[in-house]
Amino acid sequence: MTDVAIVGASMTQFGRREGEWIRDLLAQAGEQCLEDANVAPHELDHLYVSNMASGELEGQTGVPNMLAHDLAAIPAYTQRIDQTSSSGGAGVYAAWQSIASGASDVTLLVGGEKMTHRSTAEATDVIASLTHPVEYKQGVTLPSFAGLTARLYLDTYDAPRESLAKVAVKNHRNGVDNPHAQFRKEIDVETALDSPVVADPLRLYDFCPITDGSAALLFCSVEDAEARGEPYVRVTGIGGATDTHVVHERADPTTMGAVVESSEQAYAMADCGPEDVDVAELHDMFTILEFLQSEDLGFFEKGEAWKAVEEGVTDRDGDLPINTSGGLKSKGHPLGASGVAQVYELVQQLRGEAGPRQVDCEVGLACNVGGFGNCVTTTILEAER
Amino acid sequence: MTDVAIVGASMTQFGRREGEWIRDLLAQAGEQCLEDANVAPHELDHLYVSNMASGELEGQTGVPNMLAHDLAAIPAYTQRIDQTSSSGGAGVYAAWQSIASGASDVTLLVGGEKMTHRSTAEATDVIASLTHPVEYKQGVTLPSFAGLTARLYLDTYDAPRESLAKVAVKNHRNGVDNPHAQFRKEIDVETALDSPVVADPLRLYDFCPITDGSAALLFCSVEDAEARGEPYVRVTGIGGATDTHVVHERADPTTMGAVVESSEQAYAMADCGPEDVDVAELHDMFTILEFLQSEDLGFFEKGEAWKAVEEGVTDRDGDLPINTSGGLKSKGHPLGASGVAQVYELVQQLRGEAGPRQVDCEVGLACNVGGFGNCVTTTILEAER
Ligand SMILES: [Ca+2]
Repeated sequence: MTDVAIVGASMTQFGRREGEWIRDLLAQAGEQCLEDANVAPHELDHLYVSNMASGELEGQTGVPNMLAHDLAAIPAYTQRIDQTSSSGGAGVYAAWQSIASGASDVTLLVGGEKMTHRSTAEATDVIASLTHPVEYKQGVTLPSFAGLTARLYLDTYDAPRESLAKVAVKNHRNGVDNPHAQFRKEIDVETALDSPVVADPLRLYDFCPITDGSAALLFCSVEDAEARGEPYVRVTGIGGATDTHVVHERADPTTMGAVVESSEQAYAMADCGPEDVDVAELHDMFTILEFLQSEDLGFFEKGEAWKAVEEGVTDRDGDLPINTSGGLKSKGHPLGASGVAQVYELVQQLRGEAGPRQVDCEVGLACNVGGFGNCVTTTILEAER
Repeated sequence: MTDVAIVGASMTQFGRREGEWIRDLLAQAGEQCLEDANVAPHELDHLYVSNMASGELEGQTGVPNMLAHDLAAIPAYTQRIDQTSSSGGAGVYAAWQSIASGASDVTLLVGGEKMTHRSTAEATDVIASLTHPVEYKQGVTLPSFAGLTARLYLDTYDAPRESLAKVAVKNHRNGVDNPHAQFRKEIDVETALDSPVVADPLRLYDFCPITDGSAALLFCSVEDAEARGEPYVRVTGIGGATDTHVVHERADPTTMGAVVESSEQAYAMADCGPEDVDVAELHDMFTILEFLQSEDLGFFEKGEAWKAVEEGVTDRDGDLPINTSGGLKSKGHPLGASGVAQVYELVQQLRGEAGPRQVDCEVGLACNVGGFGNCVTTTILEAER
């Protein structure tokens, strides 16, 4: 198996990108990534797009071919990868496979979504259409799962409601220093707790926003990366798994089985464990998900993640900084882009180029969650300096 | 790189599947394929779905996770692969990469589409949304490209209009012997030439129908296939490429650049050439496309494919049988299923299990076309008997 490197990374401004469409966003991140990697478009063998719903949201399909056109990358082979809200992580896995298998020497992955031109109700319904029909027909949406799970977690582990608010506060604080983040304003616990109820006990500040944006990564072999002389990071572990598609069938809804399974694969491949991870980007689509993932990844004992947040362990100056980018919560969550942007943040951190967000790190982990943990990818990266 | 085998193959009845939805179709082909391969659901590491537009056509997303549920394959990793009408071929390439890279030991690929519940106009518009906006806004659809290209081909190469009708006649004749085909009736040249004009000079019988259906393939290493003791075929060559996304930018619209490029990759990998191919499944969404592909794959000189059809070379008892399955023309074209079903037919042929459609063959080639040749995959398979 060929060792895989990431030699370029980019992301666009996340937020409301009025008058710009999926095509524009993908092309912007793609161009920036080629520039960052110092790779010419004609060098691309494969060009992958992570995107959940350009057809449903914008009436535009065939976007990978449009991107090949816009980047002057024809005849590079293209495909679109959709794994709902973990399309980005699935794209990372697909791009990794393209290099590891020898199918491609140079693969560009661009993840993106254009959402804000649709109403919140419309966008929420497109996302809800990923749930199992038996639950969808009950009017269940992902936010309602989040509310139920949060209540169960708080009850089971005697966690204070404030601990969830503190996830939002931390991630907003990190977002202030991320020039690409949708929200760059600090909030306090009181603001979070006073915000409108969305799915009791969760309130507005427990949810990520609806976002337009794109991010990109350039993959090649470690050998090629060395020869190119560009800074790179090494993909040392990667894995993916599913959990029950019917959420209410899970034995313990506070455990995300696909996070456990996919991270076990990634740790085994990287020959490391949770104790070796220095910085992590988790899928905080809802604040409660940051607790669940950081426990299911093995960072903290079950039911203890909330204490770690209370104690500042996951702050930028803590022992295990989580979501230095601001997370989905403050950076935003353009579905297909999010998993790619998680890895973008880790590449910045591992190359020592994260500016005011920089933490001391050699090993980074990204966990991208589709649906309510229905499908998850976990990626482990190591610095090469 | 791990050598890749296909140890199981299945397809559902193609046609109008009233009251059945994408979920039903995928599950049926998936179950049949597991049975054909004698593989248990829990053995699956990866489960891929080739599907263009379940969200646009049916309002259902997240179908790979639903399929993992329905097949009892959780926690197998899932993703959806979309490459418009070549989603199936792209799925074959992705599944191949999953095994060749070592990411998965056992990968099930299921391709499917549910279309007939929508009107022809609606379905055509979803497909047309894959074209470049500069052409889409002119009201250009794939059939109109086909008409223009057919006229150019007939004029340039002095081909008689009847030669296109003979493609339809041949493929309908083959479809009669395919129990899964949508149309199982012979037609004659006169019927084809008398059918209503759709995009001059092309008439109704030059077009494939709108279809519901699904097909599946089970991938593992050749080593594993040997150990399982099941009949298998070997994937010896595979490649993919794009052509200009704006169709009118092509220097010669009668040449499909992505067919040339992707087949060159596949031949090089398989260390063979067009002269070694014994049977082929081509993407005859429009009759004219069978001419273009069989020339661009190197089976015939440019401008000579029509003569081969006239002379019966591509008939079942000819030197190079093309579309023994009936092709998209008579078998039907459920977008995400088509590229998978092409390989299903080749597996049947190479295992000597094609019944009345059986031809003498050791090497088969499938060419799956997205858009109007915007993206193409070519796969070469060899018998292992
Ligand atoms: Ca650089």
